[in-house]
Amino acid sequence: MKHIAVYPGTFDPVTSGHVDLVERSLRIFDELIVAVAANPKKAPLFSLDERIAMFREVTARYTNVVIEGFDGLLVDYVKQKNAVGIIRGLRAVSDFEYEMQMALMNRRLDSDIETVFLMPNEEYSFITSTIVKEAASYGGDVSSLVPREVVEKLKRKFGK
Amino acid sequence: MKHIAVYPGTFDPVTSGHVDLVERSLRIFDELIVAVAANPKKAPLFSLDERIAMFREVTARYTNVVIEGFDGLLVDYVKQKNAVGIIRGLRAVSDFEYEMQMALMNRRLDSDIETVFLMPNEEYSFITSTIVKEAASYGGDVSSLVPREVVEKLKRKFGK
Amino acid sequence: MKHIAVYPGTFDPVTSGHVDLVERSLRIFDELIVAVAANPKKAPLFSLDERIAMFREVTARYTNVVIEGFDGLLVDYVKQKNAVGIIRGLRAVSDFEYEMQMALMNRRLDSDIETVFLMPNEEYSFITSTIVKEAASYGGDVSSLVPREVVEKLKRKFGK
Amino acid sequence: MKHIAVYPGTFDPVTSGHVDLVERSLRIFDELIVAVAANPKKAPLFSLDERIAMFREVTARYTNVVIEGFDGLLVDYVKQKNAVGIIRGLRAVSDFEYEMQMALMNRRLDSDIETVFLMPNEEYSFITSTIVKEAASYGGDVSSLVPREVVEKLKRKFGK
Amino acid sequence: MKHIAVYPGTFDPVTSGHVDLVERSLRIFDELIVAVAANPKKAPLFSLDERIAMFREVTARYTNVVIEGFDGLLVDYVKQKNAVGIIRGLRAVSDFEYEMQMALMNRRLDSDIETVFLMPNEEYSFITSTIVKEAASYGGDVSSLVPREVVEKLKRKFGK
Amino acid sequence: MKHIAVYPGTFDPVTSGHVDLVERSLRIFDELIVAVAANPKKAPLFSLDERIAMFREVTARYTNVVIEGFDGLLVDYVKQKNAVGIIRGLRAVSDFEYEMQMALMNRRLDSDIETVFLMPNEEYSFITSTIVKEAASYGGDVSSLVPREVVEKLKRKFGK
Repeated sequence: MKHIAVYPGTFDPVTSGHVDLVERSLRIFDELIVAVAANPKKAPLFSLDERIAMFREVTARYTNVVIEGFDGLLVDYVKQKNAVGIIRGLRAVSDFEYEMQMALMNRRLDSDIETVFLMPNEEYSFITSTIVKEAASYGGDVSSLVPREVVEKLKRKFGK
Repeated sequence: MKHIAVYPGTFDPVTSGHVDLVERSLRIFDELIVAVAANPKKAPLFSLDERIAMFREVTARYTNVVIEGFDGLLVDYVKQKNAVGIIRGLRAVSDFEYEMQMALMNRRLDSDIETVFLMPNEEYSFITSTIVKEAASYGGDVSSLVPREVVEKLKRKFGK
Repeated sequence: MKHIAVYPGTFDPVTSGHVDLVERSLRIFDELIVAVAANPKKAPLFSLDERIAMFREVTARYTNVVIEGFDGLLVDYVKQKNAVGIIRGLRAVSDFEYEMQMALMNRRLDSDIETVFLMPNEEYSFITSTIVKEAASYGGDVSSLVPREVVEKLKRKFGK
Repeated sequence: MKHIAVYPGTFDPVTSGHVDLVERSLRIFDELIVAVAANPKKAPLFSLDERIAMFREVTARYTNVVIEGFDGLLVDYVKQKNAVGIIRGLRAVSDFEYEMQMALMNRRLDSDIETVFLMPNEEYSFITSTIVKEAASYGGDVSSLVPREVVEKLKRKFGK
Repeated sequence: MKHIAVYPGTFDPVTSGHVDLVERSLRIFDELIVAVAANPKKAPLFSLDERIAMFREVTARYTNVVIEGFDGLLVDYVKQKNAVGIIRGLRAVSDFEYEMQMALMNRRLDSDIETVFLMPNEEYSFITSTIVKEAASYGGDVSSLVPREVVEKLKRKFGK
Repeated sequence: MKHIAVYPGTFDPVTSGHVDLVERSLRIFDELIVAVAANPKKAPLFSLDERIAMFREVTARYTNVVIEGFDGLLVDYVKQKNAVGIIRGLRAVSDFEYEMQMALMNRRLDSDIETVFLMPNEEYSFITSTIVKEAASYGGDVSSLVPREVVEKLKRKFGK
């Protein structure tokens, strides 16, 4: 049996914490499908196409990672992909409670699908896309927080 | 002495967790007044009249539950109703801190009024109106999360 | 119907936070039974008889408060007393999770009994019997943390 | 590649939450090794042999679950078993922080090993072996909290 | 060496908790610079000039407190002021996690700058500017939550 | 004015996180007094003299750090040393609540003394003396968690 997992998110932008989680997932699963949210709750800085392209660029070296846009009910998507699990990163207590609610909701919608929580490197434990964008918008150096390719893209967006 | 409590909320929509809390409150209090917020912070999916009618429908079997719209300062409303307590449900740590802040604020505004925290059935501990709406908007089956009457109303709202 | 609640605890010693919770409970319930644990997990500083006498002394002015020693399964005791609820104080997140576990366990053991959480005055939110004993053992002045009668008893125990 | 995981614990006694986690793990991994702690921090109610036998009994229907006693450094054991992950259940915020500390420590001791967090059924989210033992010691009915086989063993231990 | 710290915030409006924190900071530092955010995330009730004037008014008695408007990257501002630390108040667990993220981010952006967390008086532990504004908007009496001068300004804003 | 702070703890053994906190404190304060608890709640692995000597050894390069044994009421000790603050490290939510209780208690015992919370490097955020001892007792390599000098001392204690 091929073990497939889905890693859903907005990835606006991709951070080093996201890449770290991809690498950890590949130790557990044979294939990882990154599902980039087409319609996040807040207006994203990067378009769906930009976010997909960006994630493909920074994970180009992995042959068993697929990046796709995604819209609709997550559990339906997971099932259609024959995946057994949803990957989520856990960094903080506030994460934990929200993630637990989502995982229980998804389980209620489809009891076959398991949510698998992994922990990022502690070096990335405080990084969120939101904090990265805020720092970059003021010209802060975020090169230790996001992949090299993303640094450039943020500079271009903020004209700095 | 007749023990009256007020259960305030937005109820957009009413969930099975809300109904569970009504039933628990009636073990402690002689009468419960459900105070439906007229002007919630976020634009509601259901109008005030719809939310009041919906809560009345799903609690029709209780003779000692009154459903009303409500606007203004909660402690003034509670006092005017001769109620001794405010009912709040506790599900998660993040709830807990916000609820504690609100309860201490209300106590500061009127020291006679007690906030009483009850715990919903653990089966409903992850359900929020927000999560229900999100799942329903994508056509997810929420029939185990909200009363039967609400399932229909959500379907009509989302045209599914 | 007479509304009775049970307030269980070790009360080693009674603090101002405990007395505050008794007073808040009497706003909601007609009678309060304080159930003093006969066999707490840790060896107590004060004997069961001392803890019962101490609580009676500091609540002597309330005619609808009963203080009793208690051993066994809490839900059986509550049922035998015809009480509808168990009173617990909530101060901190760590309290909250433990209390939630106990409340769900008690509900599983007897689904008729509700746990009612109240919040102490914020002035007492950091006080625990353990912290009080530690401070008193080093001669710290705890007169703002425990009832006047308890200050003396602590001094005698620690010979200070 | 055969995906193996290790599920370490004291299991004093095995609860329905533990069995639930075994079943969830088998959706993600091809084989699960349950590592029963030989020397838990607190003196256990059941001996190591009893705890191993008990877990074998309640998981007899699974051919890909192995139950073993375990002593020493967890990461060494995991490596020797060619396992890729350590399974841990997450129920509450307090769990979460302790588990995070342990997972980061284990990662520091051996960076190849991933800790995988799964969520038990919410029906079991408040159950701990400690709470079960306490209720059983007072004659409480724990048959909805532990497998049928364990109910009998608890009764015999407590002579009830 | 003169020890300078920066206390950044939106202060919309200044609460008694903010003033309490200023006083506590002055026990540790020789000079405190209050940095009032020019562009908070949410549209403020009071303009930047009003917020600066308000904070100056309520701290007029301190000769070593400077109030300034601030825009840009916080760590750059702190460095330019020759300050050694950023002051933040800690009230609740939810505060704590957000504050920790920001502090680690700031440390990443400039490793010379330390974030110093102080605890407000427990009497102010539940007060936020948001809760104060909400209560004042309904005509609630907030005179025990904000400095006397701010009570008047809130009344004028809300026309009550 | 010379700014002095006291950093109390058991330090059984000193970890890299403790040393990190000493260095951070010296950015804020002119002198730091490390107060090593003479009588910790649990029997320590290292004697008071060993713990004092160990901390002196790993901070020998700092001329403004004093290491002393300490017994009694912390606030009395702090006052006698003319210190203005107590230093505590904050790593996790569970830390936070306990630390908050202790800080409020100390403030109640002596309102002049401020508790100052600092955050260790995130690399050390999961390290506790207890976890270090447990790993070392099984022969785990703790050289990235404690100062070089402490690695040897742990090996000798555990005969490994």
